[in-house]
Amino acid sequence: MPVLVMKFGGTSVATLDRIRRAAKRVGVEVAKGYDVIVIVSAMSGETNKLVGFVNETSPLYDAREYDAIVSSGENVTAGLMALTLQEMDVPARSWQGWQVPVRTTDAHSAARIEEIPTDNINAKFGEGMKVAVVAGFQGISPQGRITTLGRGGSDTTAVAFAAAFDAERCDIYTDVDGVYTTDPRVESKARKLDKISFEEMLELASLGAKVLQTRSVELAMRYKVKLRVLSSFEEQSDDAGTLVCDEEEIMESNVVAGVAFSRDEAKMTLVSVADRPGIAATIFTALSEGGVNVDMIVQNIAEEGRTDMTWSCPVDQVIRAEKAMEKAHEEGIINYQELIADKGVAKVSVVGIGMRSHTGVAAKMFKVLSDEGINIKVITTSEIKISVLIDRKYMELAVQALHDAFELDKAA
Amino acid sequence: MPVLVMKFGGTSVATLDRIRRAAKRVGVEVAKGYDVIVIVSAMSGETNKLVGFVNETSPLYDAREYDAIVSSGENVTAGLMALTLQEMDVPARSWQGWQVPVRTTDAHSAARIEEIPTDNINAKFGEGMKVAVVAGFQGISPQGRITTLGRGGSDTTAVAFAAAFDAERCDIYTDVDGVYTTDPRVESKARKLDKISFEEMLELASLGAKVLQTRSVELAMRYKVKLRVLSSFEEQSDDAGTLVCDEEEIMESNVVAGVAFSRDEAKMTLVSVADRPGIAATIFTALSEGGVNVDMIVQNIAEEGRTDMTWSCPVDQVIRAEKAMEKAHEEGIINYQELIADKGVAKVSVVGIGMRSHTGVAAKMFKVLSDEGINIKVITTSEIKISVLIDRKYMELAVQALHDAFELDKAA
Repeated sequence: MPVLVMKFGGTSVATLDRIRRAAKRVGVEVAKGYDVIVIVSAMSGETNKLVGFVNETSPLYDAREYDAIVSSGENVTAGLMALTLQEMDVPARSWQGWQVPVRTTDAHSAARIEEIPTDNINAKFGEGMKVAVVAGFQGISPQGRITTLGRGGSDTTAVAFAAAFDAERCDIYTDVDGVYTTDPRVESKARKLDKISFEEMLELASLGAKVLQTRSVELAMRYKVKLRVLSSFEEQSDDAGTLVCDEEEIMESNVVAGVAFSRDEAKMTLVSVADRPGIAATIFTALSEGGVNVDMIVQNIAEEGRTDMTWSCPVDQVIRAEKAMEKAHEEGIINYQELIADKGVAKVSVVGIGMRSHTGVAAKMFKVLSDEGINIKVITTSEIKISVLIDRKYMELAVQALHDAFELDKAA
Repeated sequence: MPVLVMKFGGTSVATLDRIRRAAKRVGVEVAKGYDVIVIVSAMSGETNKLVGFVNETSPLYDAREYDAIVSSGENVTAGLMALTLQEMDVPARSWQGWQVPVRTTDAHSAARIEEIPTDNINAKFGEGMKVAVVAGFQGISPQGRITTLGRGGSDTTAVAFAAAFDAERCDIYTDVDGVYTTDPRVESKARKLDKISFEEMLELASLGAKVLQTRSVELAMRYKVKLRVLSSFEEQSDDAGTLVCDEEEIMESNVVAGVAFSRDEAKMTLVSVADRPGIAATIFTALSEGGVNVDMIVQNIAEEGRTDMTWSCPVDQVIRAEKAMEKAHEEGIINYQELIADKGVAKVSVVGIGMRSHTGVAAKMFKVLSDEGINIKVITTSEIKISVLIDRKYMELAVQALHDAFELDKAA
């Protein structure tokens, strides 16, 4: 039997009624002849409640206990989904991560899946079971303790199962009906994409389009797992949602696939740093150890022997960055004149595999922003993406102008 | 190091504050030099919530999924207790049932513990860990699936760990401060017992004094585990609560240890049953298959070849009993004239190991009730217990009169 993986996120299993609704979708696929592996998240709100308990109990918690606690929500949903399917006369049973077992590293709260043996579940499929319901987000470490994969980790669980079982497709059911050219709340003309390449999705995911966990897209790309994002709240046709796939499968596409943005960014500049080989490594190691997630990095030569170093990070990490730099300064590791923080910036990016073969995308982007009177503060580029930092107040305007200029409301 | 087992019930871990309070009690025992095994229940309300989910999803649920779902509450508490202890600088970690592993039968929802290997936890004690926090109520079946031990099963988990680790004592922390001569809500002169024998506790537990799960007392008796029941809401001294122990350890005791009662009973009589060998087995098999928990049984000879059979059961099972008997009658299995149900009775019992060596307890009990004008409807006795069924409206009066007559307000 061909195997299909179906993943239901927290909002899709938030109540018993929604679990029933999701189970009906599973039943439809079983009727088509699939052996189905269902990956479930915790009922929405549950994980936050448990994380709240942990934080209140122990702000600097033991991540092994954190994992043991927060993984329980998925176990409840898995059991309820199995019971619901049984009530519909679909042979099903639940698996917790350790029962499969989903073997992971021991990097608690951010573990990586290393191996998913298929014999256990395949044996049950062989006995006539039609649906294996697996608790997402969790696994077991080499030491036999429960691990979790980080927030949103159930997407990664789903893709990993699809890869391990050589599934025909991995359907991610969520509360949106697919991947859009940009956030419809910012640009009403945003259009749902029928297909998007792994590479583009990866850039969009890491740029803050929260439809899929970044790692799940990486994994799907590596193992060529066809990924479909679709809504659990709408009647489904066979071509519903957005298919995330190899770019070879996309016949026609716009040069630019989408416009992404990230609202709460900060731009920080370390002014007049004493330049020497390895200074960048020193600065960014100190920031990393201080818990700062640095995104964009730009270096300018200020004067002979000194340099300015600029980076962006989430605005709520500015204080951490300041502390890390002050500490490094006091310890004599980094010599600088001043640290300037601009907390009023946002990041806007255009993404598209078409950029590889089309020149002039960057020039066009800069002209569009310039025509709107928007000043660009920092630029970074990759093969299929151009990102700029701008004043936050212009963010919506920039997204709308770029969406218009690249005609994203029209299909290729 | 000597090992101590401490069990905290649902009300004792109902909030993070109460978990902290319980953890402080654990810290006191660690400071005395114990290696401590803490058994925790789910935060009160959690298990009921999960059971509600299951019943709503699937009235005739798969008990294997039920167990997987309802066991999750204990896992949360175990992790939170371990974190709380760590915050107090007490080296601790949590174990879920399958991690120990607590090996049980595969009688899901009513599994029995078969084996608790000690090597895993003892190795950690050897490495300096001071507290093993274990999720109560759960285990793992020979098939590798999660089992639960039935409601109140955490008491049994605690006693089983105390037996396996040869613990010095098993302390059961609950919301009452010990075992009383009777329910203080019915008799204000009820006195807390310092000690009670396993046998007496067993009778009291099965008679409806809901302090300890019956099976946990059986297990403690078999393995000679000293069991102490005490309140988690009061400051503790070394002799707080009630010690449940071997009768040899009780130097002096009253002939009667306590008066137990059960309010909502029914007395049912099957009138003029055609008597033949095996008729009792036929009747009580039919009742058992109909889901009726029969308690007392009395048989009278009515006339030649016919007999009256009387039993008691919980009042809310009368309809089930009637259906079972009608069915058996229609099928020609049991021939009887009439089934009479008296739904207005209660059971009152006096319990005490002293009865073995003291005669006249039954006579005294019947006289006390007679002096109060209370009619006795059914009598059953065991070696250390006398139970009677009486009209429900006299129950409180009977309990108070017996408590007085046997001078239970005074220590031996």
